[in-house]
Amino acid sequence: MAMKHSATGCSVEEAMRLLGVRWRLLIIFYLVGGPKRFSELRRCLPVISQRMLTLDLRALEEADLVERTVFPTVPVTVQYGLSVDGLRLVPVVEVMRSFGLWLKERDRA
Amino acid sequence: MAMKHSATGCSVEEAMRLLGVRWRLLIIFYLVGGPKRFSELRRCLPVISQRMLTLDLRALEEADLVERTVFPTVPVTVQYGLSVDGLRLVPVVEVMRSFGLWLKERDRA
Repeated sequence: MAMKHSATGCSVEEAMRLLGVRWRLLIIFYLVGGPKRFSELRRCLPVISQRMLTLDLRALEEADLVERTVFPTVPVTVQYGLSVDGLRLVPVVEVMRSFGLWLKERDRA
Repeated sequence: MAMKHSATGCSVEEAMRLLGVRWRLLIIFYLVGGPKRFSELRRCLPVISQRMLTLDLRALEEADLVERTVFPTVPVTVQYGLSVDGLRLVPVVEVMRSFGLWLKERDRA
């Protein structure tokens, strides 16, 4: 019985193509808490190299989920925050956090 | 202002360590629809090589999220399905599907 690559499966694929790159959803998680400077995100996310963080932020910015604001201080301050579209990721982060909490509890038992 | 690697962020990290490997959540999506034979999953997921599908199924099995059942037919039939624990992934898949649908609609506009 052949099974077609379904349209709904395709949506999960679409979402994971963007968010499945390992730490992007973790970046989003920290931005849900409010806008952060690059250096603050670096401290939140010691698992990610500076280069990967830059690339992931750029990809999220290109997908219009993250907004980059430059303040004309000396030196300039660059701040990242969720865009209006990015707020749609709040429930995604929330469900992932719940599952992660449950997983940790289970594996501790 | 130093920021600690928070316990809740850590839960998202834990979840993504397991599910963020790109196509695992897509495998789960297809298993939400009911148990599947390996060959059926292969047809659902042409994006994944046979080797990667095998490795991902094994990882999900080791995490007790997927159950593998062997039927003593000739040749043997191997079937994969969500375990009781794996059912906890249904809301994760659902929220990811909704986001993916929205993303596709947005980018089509």
